[in-house]
Amino acid sequence: MDFDPKTLTYNADGLIPAIAQDAVSGEVLMMAWMNLEAVRRTLDTRRVTYWSRSRQAFWIKGESSGHVQELVDLRVDCDRDCLLALVNQTGPACHTNRRSCFYTSVEDGSERELMAPMV
Amino acid sequence: MDFDPKTLTYNADGLIPAIAQDAVSGEVLMMAWMNLEAVRRTLDTRRVTYWSRSRQAFWIKGESSGHVQELVDLRVDCDRDCLLALVNQTGPACHTNRRSCFYTSVEDGSERELMAPMV
Repeated sequence: MDFDPKTLTYNADGLIPAIAQDAVSGEVLMMAWMNLEAVRRTLDTRRVTYWSRSRQAFWIKGESSGHVQELVDLRVDCDRDCLLALVNQTGPACHTNRRSCFYTSVEDGSERELMAPMV
Repeated sequence: MDFDPKTLTYNADGLIPAIAQDAVSGEVLMMAWMNLEAVRRTLDTRRVTYWSRSRQAFWIKGESSGHVQELVDLRVDCDRDCLLALVNQTGPACHTNRRSCFYTSVEDGSERELMAPMV
């Protein structure tokens, strides 16, 4: 079946959540949002492209930082309202310079930092 | 630092996206939503509990199907607006009886099913 980004389910703001996962290690790196055109651009360019809600602009991941995400595989979930991008991540995915945005663990009611910023 | 679910950032509907990942294989299983009380219940009971937007009710994953998610680790992202639950998943995570909801891959403009329902 041909894939048409129009067949995805977007929220009231026209956005769909996209999870980025390291294609090699399986580590979940981040979650951000795409609109229809960002999905198209991600597939066309193989450079993962989100929609920045704060800047209201396309966000080609790594364009300014160099921490690009090369698309390896794009997956659609059963409800067609969430995407999973398997990527080759250059450097840290997180703006705090950590490999993953999910560096805080909740353990016995306390928060614990699992990873340090990359140098 | 003590963890307080009130310090998370919820959307206008009071919800935060939660990604479930297999704690052993690293496979991303599904994405659903939690509200503040679902986060609390998930941590208190170690049974992953979502908020069902369609039913407008708590959704203790696997309560009717038996396909429960035992919480291994709960992680908060840098912006505190997304959660990652590492889980021990019993059986399929997807309502289609597949192990993961992300069973459809987009390849060269076409959709391809990567996994069959579990028996």
